[in-house]
Amino acid sequence: MAVEQDAKDSLLSPCHAQLANELPSETMDKGRLPNPITDFPAWYGEVVKQSGMAEHSLARGTMVAKPHGYGIWEFVQRALDDRFKLTGHENVYFPLYFPESLLAREAEHVEGFAPELAVITHGGGAKLEEPLVVRPTSEAIIWSTYANWIQSYRDLPLLYNQWGNVVRWELRTRLFLRTSEFLWQEGHTAHAGSDEAYEEALRMLEVYREVAEDVLAIPVVPGRKSEAEKFAGAVTTFTIEGLMRDGKALQCGTSHFLGQNFAKAYDVTFLNQSGELEHVWGTSWGASWRLVGGIVMTHGDERGLRLPPKVAPIQVVVVPIYRSDDQKSEVMAVAHKLRDSLAGDGIRVRVDDRDQYRPGYKFSEWELKGVPIRIEIGPKDVAADQVVTVDRLTGDKRQRSTAQAATSLPAALDEVQAGLHRSALDFREANTHTASTYAELRDGVAEQAGLWVGPWCGEATCEERVTADTKATIRVLPLVPEDPGAPCLVCGRAGTERATWARAY
Amino acid sequence: MAVEQDAKDSLLSPCHAQLANELPSETMDKGRLPNPITDFPAWYGEVVKQSGMAEHSLARGTMVAKPHGYGIWEFVQRALDDRFKLTGHENVYFPLYFPESLLAREAEHVEGFAPELAVITHGGGAKLEEPLVVRPTSEAIIWSTYANWIQSYRDLPLLYNQWGNVVRWELRTRLFLRTSEFLWQEGHTAHAGSDEAYEEALRMLEVYREVAEDVLAIPVVPGRKSEAEKFAGAVTTFTIEGLMRDGKALQCGTSHFLGQNFAKAYDVTFLNQSGELEHVWGTSWGASWRLVGGIVMTHGDERGLRLPPKVAPIQVVVVPIYRSDDQKSEVMAVAHKLRDSLAGDGIRVRVDDRDQYRPGYKFSEWELKGVPIRIEIGPKDVAADQVVTVDRLTGDKRQRSTAQAATSLPAALDEVQAGLHRSALDFREANTHTASTYAELRDGVAEQAGLWVGPWCGEATCEERVTADTKATIRVLPLVPEDPGAPCLVCGRAGTERATWARAY
Repeated sequence: MAVEQDAKDSLLSPCHAQLANELPSETMDKGRLPNPITDFPAWYGEVVKQSGMAEHSLARGTMVAKPHGYGIWEFVQRALDDRFKLTGHENVYFPLYFPESLLAREAEHVEGFAPELAVITHGGGAKLEEPLVVRPTSEAIIWSTYANWIQSYRDLPLLYNQWGNVVRWELRTRLFLRTSEFLWQEGHTAHAGSDEAYEEALRMLEVYREVAEDVLAIPVVPGRKSEAEKFAGAVTTFTIEGLMRDGKALQCGTSHFLGQNFAKAYDVTFLNQSGELEHVWGTSWGASWRLVGGIVMTHGDERGLRLPPKVAPIQVVVVPIYRSDDQKSEVMAVAHKLRDSLAGDGIRVRVDDRDQYRPGYKFSEWELKGVPIRIEIGPKDVAADQVVTVDRLTGDKRQRSTAQAATSLPAALDEVQAGLHRSALDFREANTHTASTYAELRDGVAEQAGLWVGPWCGEATCEERVTADTKATIRVLPLVPEDPGAPCLVCGRAGTERATWARAY
Repeated sequence: MAVEQDAKDSLLSPCHAQLANELPSETMDKGRLPNPITDFPAWYGEVVKQSGMAEHSLARGTMVAKPHGYGIWEFVQRALDDRFKLTGHENVYFPLYFPESLLAREAEHVEGFAPELAVITHGGGAKLEEPLVVRPTSEAIIWSTYANWIQSYRDLPLLYNQWGNVVRWELRTRLFLRTSEFLWQEGHTAHAGSDEAYEEALRMLEVYREVAEDVLAIPVVPGRKSEAEKFAGAVTTFTIEGLMRDGKALQCGTSHFLGQNFAKAYDVTFLNQSGELEHVWGTSWGASWRLVGGIVMTHGDERGLRLPPKVAPIQVVVVPIYRSDDQKSEVMAVAHKLRDSLAGDGIRVRVDDRDQYRPGYKFSEWELKGVPIRIEIGPKDVAADQVVTVDRLTGDKRQRSTAQAATSLPAALDEVQAGLHRSALDFREANTHTASTYAELRDGVAEQAGLWVGPWCGEATCEERVTADTKATIRVLPLVPEDPGAPCLVCGRAGTERATWARAY
């Protein structure tokens, strides 16, 4: 019985090697994945490469985002961009490069970014009079331009966002997570008052939190960064932090309250309603394609990716099963009819009609790529007017009537979306610990990883000692400082903050 | 009677100067536009700046795309991207920079682009061992990568597109039309056969033609480029050429049949179905934000932009007219109801509720920005349950019942879209001339501008002479060479091509 035979195949662990003679050459190097429990970094790199998401490119630190990886990024972009527009922002585009001297006007900012700059010294065949820096972020060029755009309170607020690439020189690179050039968005807003700017920074943090949780199914902890971890030039940096499957934290997006720092550096003033000249208040906020890496590291398993349906380029794949040409035409007719019906409901569906692969190979490939739901249709299914659905989250196989499959899949996709979030949340809760002594924090980070919460006095020296001892950093502090009601784990002085520590990407 | 008073205002030519004390500072420098007939370049620059589309930035050749300009570009992008996906393409992202030596492997290509390169020589605080070039286009990095992705005919075709920025050093810059950094898309496809690649190049030319005509309302002539005008590295370059209001041509998109040129340069081979090793066949095709400049130069008039509704960030603006607070609340209630109704039909609508400006100023501003339809609502209109609609194409004012306005606007927007295209087509037809002697061509280009069609022998020497005498270049040749049935206008030998000449951007 073809269906059962192939169904059985699909329950075996991937076994690409024996099928290698059937593989297209792009996937020829696919093998069993490294174990995500024992070698997470190798597992991550192989999943990203084998699933066709990305690979390293020629210049150090650069990567190519391939269709499956870029496709996920496009859905992340759409989710963010829609919400930016709903919250009143417009998109703009500022130049890739600008004079090096411009960056120097905000002292902390240039100190933070100078070591990471790429510098253009020649253009059009000639040496440039002044070197140009490739933007590592755009505060400098944007605030120097805002100086011309803003004169009066009537010109405010400016609520602008930009999609683009930035370059920050990196020696240790990791696909999507840490590359010299990366794609991101950066919002840059200007306001007539401190409270208004602070609220904006929090509003955009909430947009990030919502997209992470509701679209990417990544549970995150929103909060503040410590002084040591904040953005170079910000008064306050807000963050959302996710916990990856290896127990390390990933910063998934940051939103900065800039106070008047950049307005002062770039001389951006406005006449307020009382007719007085005042410096403008600012925010900036950014999220990058590292979120794609976050999806992999939050949801992936030993078979590869598990994609939240909301960002899956393919949500449902239909794999036809047949041996003879007669069977093929029967099965394909049903497959195409089902595809059209699902596509009509707005589901992103593909029929895998490649003749050169066996169904078992296709099952493994689509599992590796993380497609949320697979539909198998064989000749016996056609005869019984039914199909088999397999969900990537649980691996559960179900027989459904063909008609029922067409109508029940939207709900099934919602279940996968919710299930992935629930599973990631359970993992985070199981891996969030409270430390009540310094030894617990130090040994816990080393032995168990995960998030470690404990009282801190707020002093940089204590923060530095923890990092020196454990490689963990303060990932996040509560949005509003909370009295931890206990002394600092490190120095024993009064605690002023409830800090969350972790090793991080 | 407020409505009539303000209606009259709106029929006057813009008169920003006397309203300057009411203007926000960003628009404080707005004045009467230069005359588009007598000084088109100055008119273009002022329209782009005053309408809030773009402005020059700090580094030579760079610009800032402001919300109104970037907003139009987003609709152009969406129109193209949707069609790329419908024709089976996926998006990818290759790095911004790569080793300089990579470019040199295709001789014509490097010769064409070397003079325009921006070069990164320092990164992360150190001098680089090998300089990196910022991509002027991505054939080099993409084909060198395709070499790893393609082994067999089963790996083909690769149908990929990339959205991003490129840098080509420019000394003479013009907003959107010619900037050192510009935003564009570049498609790069790889095929197992020459015919298939050639068809792909034509398919994407047709996508460009359709978007230009149906979305941007820019009539274009599709065809081939001459050898002198083709892309450096292509076998054949296809183009769509538009005619701007000053009688100069604008290349609106190009699609290249690359033959095996890049495959040979980067050693990209595949095993064909007969088991023989063969070089891969390629295409590339690109369109940039210069299309936004093309929209301005095709449709603009003495009052500013006229935007095709399909790319207008705001399609309908509602301007409330009132003097007292009572009138305001009455009028605003109707305005908001109408807005909600139109927005519910998917129309992009804004109510201009700014208190600090008079209606007459608002009318001029929205005309400058090219909003296709304006709705005016005053207290008498509210009493009569009617509104006044004014269309940007013809300036026609119509009274409509409020209910009718809500239902009739989709059709009215379609009329503006079609009307702009018809008007541009009429202009092109009136400015397309046939030359039957060299004197006619030479004097015609100098005195009348426009497109000049005439027989050509196909020799570069004749092409060069025309350009030396007139500054006109061959913009386009028919897709399939046509016997012009007459001797070459320049040399008198047998004509082999029906060439279209024009001065161009």
